[in-house]
Amino acid sequence: MYIAVIGPDAEATSMNRQHAYEVGHLLAERGVIVVTGGLGGVMECAARGCSDADGMSVGLLPGRDRRYGSQPHAVALPTGLGELRNALVVGCADGVIAIGGSWGTLSELALAQRNGVRVVSLNGWGVVDEAGRPLEVETAISPRQAVDRIIEVAGGLLR
Amino acid sequence: MYIAVIGPDAEATSMNRQHAYEVGHLLAERGVIVVTGGLGGVMECAARGCSDADGMSVGLLPGRDRRYGSQPHAVALPTGLGELRNALVVGCADGVIAIGGSWGTLSELALAQRNGVRVVSLNGWGVVDEAGRPLEVETAISPRQAVDRIIEVAGGLLR
Amino acid sequence: MYIAVIGPDAEATSMNRQHAYEVGHLLAERGVIVVTGGLGGVMECAARGCSDADGMSVGLLPGRDRRYGSQPHAVALPTGLGELRNALVVGCADGVIAIGGSWGTLSELALAQRNGVRVVSLNGWGVVDEAGRPLEVETAISPRQAVDRIIEVAGGLLR
Amino acid sequence: MYIAVIGPDAEATSMNRQHAYEVGHLLAERGVIVVTGGLGGVMECAARGCSDADGMSVGLLPGRDRRYGSQPHAVALPTGLGELRNALVVGCADGVIAIGGSWGTLSELALAQRNGVRVVSLNGWGVVDEAGRPLEVETAISPRQAVDRIIEVAGGLLR
Repeated sequence: MYIAVIGPDAEATSMNRQHAYEVGHLLAERGVIVVTGGLGGVMECAARGCSDADGMSVGLLPGRDRRYGSQPHAVALPTGLGELRNALVVGCADGVIAIGGSWGTLSELALAQRNGVRVVSLNGWGVVDEAGRPLEVETAISPRQAVDRIIEVAGGLLR
Repeated sequence: MYIAVIGPDAEATSMNRQHAYEVGHLLAERGVIVVTGGLGGVMECAARGCSDADGMSVGLLPGRDRRYGSQPHAVALPTGLGELRNALVVGCADGVIAIGGSWGTLSELALAQRNGVRVVSLNGWGVVDEAGRPLEVETAISPRQAVDRIIEVAGGLLR
Repeated sequence: MYIAVIGPDAEATSMNRQHAYEVGHLLAERGVIVVTGGLGGVMECAARGCSDADGMSVGLLPGRDRRYGSQPHAVALPTGLGELRNALVVGCADGVIAIGGSWGTLSELALAQRNGVRVVSLNGWGVVDEAGRPLEVETAISPRQAVDRIIEVAGGLLR
Repeated sequence: MYIAVIGPDAEATSMNRQHAYEVGHLLAERGVIVVTGGLGGVMECAARGCSDADGMSVGLLPGRDRRYGSQPHAVALPTGLGELRNALVVGCADGVIAIGGSWGTLSELALAQRNGVRVVSLNGWGVVDEAGRPLEVETAISPRQAVDRIIEVAGGLLR
């Protein structure tokens, strides 16, 4: 199973980073391959947690230079796609855990929702319709709950 | 100047469609090239308004078959990129008018915000941060206001 | 009908450029929309010929800045895809005319052959198999022959 | 270091497959990560050789369904990019070994040459200019020579 962990780069909070580390660690313990956008913040912390649990992580970088990828990713692929790589990150995963909020993260979350890829959000941004009513995005209150839940719901959708 | 008009396909409301037609018409009157995702609903109505004002519109289709493109687009390009074409639609425009809400539309709006491409929204979805505070997305109350505003703010950012 | 005209940028010969101008002019006279990679050399000359015959041309630029597009294109779209835009150029066309040779041009010609998009080549590079035997790529001896032939063979494959 | 191994799918010869297996094995022994297009033939055999030497391989699939990926890849990413993934395969590698010939393989080889990514070819197709003169593509006579050479020439270009 492949789970994308998405979230802010430099603007990630320290709680976002801690959660990302724990999520990466827990996913690796469960044998899940972690996919990220390959940069810092939530992406780097998820990869480090994964690495510390001897797991496999793949970073899909927006640019063409692998050296901008964050160290702990086991595999770092410079796509040269710019922000189009956001669609690649969620499109190649069986499910998504979103940690924290940013416009880039929201674009990935929205693409996942659009394409029926399951998402669980931890301290992420919310969406309201034109009348101000909240749209449903599944949320978790802890890294463990997020991991348990995404493995449960994405399990039936293996691609 | 190139302005992307984004919004729902089949789930567009009749008000969304009417607004899209007027926006397309007004943009064409101002000599703006209209870019859309090439399908129905808001995309088709914007292209029809543009066409009825003798304007130029380009539809960037997700699939590989031009015949799925909606008729009124002057140019229809089947990209074969799937949802990655969303990033192309906003990435090749100088500004974005979002009409109505859907997850695909939100992904495009978020990518535009992420990349500093100006957006004006008409009856679109809103975004709230993790504490429930609304994030600023510029809104308009009429097609004319949306068009005036996007031409004003995107004018300095010609790419 | 949409025909991609592919060929070298700065390294185009003066014969390549003259052929490209004539091909663009003839395609426009026949009502065909011309698609190019949006830069100079063969791409610019094809767009200029098209423009001089009041035709429609679309340039799909590799970068993110429209100002690098060559002037005569009626529509210039900065894709930000880098060399991935080569696959977009041939993938959104009903047929391809290749003028002159370069590695970028060859990548487009090969993608077209791979995907069953018809190609006619004017003074282009050739391909030989591992035993040195030439592989068949249809060639023309003049712009007019190239245009007549691509319209004939691509006509049945409209997408 | 990341090396892309490119070559035909179903039309690969038995010699192509044997060479691909050896190339994948030798690259893994040298600690190189192998990148392929994720399908059968040369791609599958390179991944199997890599796997049998306890190496890491990544398959970048054209479609959206991971189940079409060939088994021995350690990581299989469905890109949904169609033939645009060819540019991704060579663009994310530090060098390329081309084994055997096909139009898809030639498109990748040409993109690599275009972008200054070093290529070594084993029993691949050749390219001649408009006057019939062969264009230089570096060739090897054995898997070992191809691997030694690509590691030597790509070493200075690490991205």
